[in-house]
Amino acid sequence: MADSAPIKDDKTPRTARGERTRRALLSAAAEEFGEKGFHEGSISGITRRAGCALGSFYTYFASKDDIFRALVADMSSQVRDHVAPRIAQARDGIDAERLGLLSFLEFARAHKEIYRIIDEAEFVDQAAYRAHYENTAARMAARLAKAAAQGDVVDDVGEVHAWAIMGMNVFLGLRYGVWDDSRPAEEVAAIANALIERGIGTQR
Amino acid sequence: MADSAPIKDDKTPRTARGERTRRALLSAAAEEFGEKGFHEGSISGITRRAGCALGSFYTYFASKDDIFRALVADMSSQVRDHVAPRIAQARDGIDAERLGLLSFLEFARAHKEIYRIIDEAEFVDQAAYRAHYENTAARMAARLAKAAAQGDVVDDVGEVHAWAIMGMNVFLGLRYGVWDDSRPAEEVAAIANALIERGIGTQR
Repeated sequence: MADSAPIKDDKTPRTARGERTRRALLSAAAEEFGEKGFHEGSISGITRRAGCALGSFYTYFASKDDIFRALVADMSSQVRDHVAPRIAQARDGIDAERLGLLSFLEFARAHKEIYRIIDEAEFVDQAAYRAHYENTAARMAARLAKAAAQGDVVDDVGEVHAWAIMGMNVFLGLRYGVWDDSRPAEEVAAIANALIERGIGTQR
Repeated sequence: MADSAPIKDDKTPRTARGERTRRALLSAAAEEFGEKGFHEGSISGITRRAGCALGSFYTYFASKDDIFRALVADMSSQVRDHVAPRIAQARDGIDAERLGLLSFLEFARAHKEIYRIIDEAEFVDQAAYRAHYENTAARMAARLAKAAAQGDVVDDVGEVHAWAIMGMNVFLGLRYGVWDDSRPAEEVAAIANALIERGIGTQR
């Protein structure tokens, strides 16, 4: 296909109204796939929830697979955009991880469908699934490298630490965010953060 | 249904040969569902891989859902039975966690289908999915309590630590077991264990 022109993606909204419609469709897709799963979920279910016509759907998305892929990328970005401003207020590199987990727990409690959707990507769109975790781990590794440069954590932090801490956060979010949210999020984040502070912190 | 007699489970093999056939079907199911996923996988695909007749399948399993549920429980037990004897050889409670992760990484490398199967249970059989992680976390919490009683780890270890360490192990197994096994498992386990040793160990 070296001689064919790249296919132009002409489904990006060009107006604020178009962007609102696309966003309404993504929110409706989160509900639809979160409740029914990918296989049982349908485009007509999505447009019904969004209160828009079937034609509008195809203005922004090519297929059920296409909106699912867009939804996984969108939820991945939503987590990042929810967590990033909280982390920016951290006192230091250790506190950044506490605020990161705390705000993630809060996000998971408010968006309990996120696990179902991202986990189902493992079966529906493996590339989107890997991208979500690889991107999240890369951001975590970059934060740890910055914390090491500031002297907040030990110098030899690296990729293994990033995947380890991400894994902690994912399972704490599942257990204390989605399955049972009765325990204060601050308490869960403080316990996990003490493990990280002692585990890789320099101030001991 | 209070007046009906409980349904007797008559599918448990009564002979060694029966147990071998049941096991062959479970191994075949791990291949079938691991490659094709639950929805695309089929009973005829399982019996073909196992080299046995369709009638034999129904001697041991009632349906595709039934063998999938049995497979999730079986893989969960296989992990436990693979890891437990290694942990029993540990020098102390911290070393137990190192050997636990090391043997889990080795298991994941040898059985790369385990993630697909257990993760798909989230959609096919939510109860089996929760049982796998709740049982694994309960074993981890019991190990940590024993380590605390021995003075190897701090006294206030609890359920949050168990879910945190399980989450670390699951994501390290995905990243360094299933997706890319080029990094020595000993190295990954040693880095994670140093985090745990400093994080909750008493010998600092």
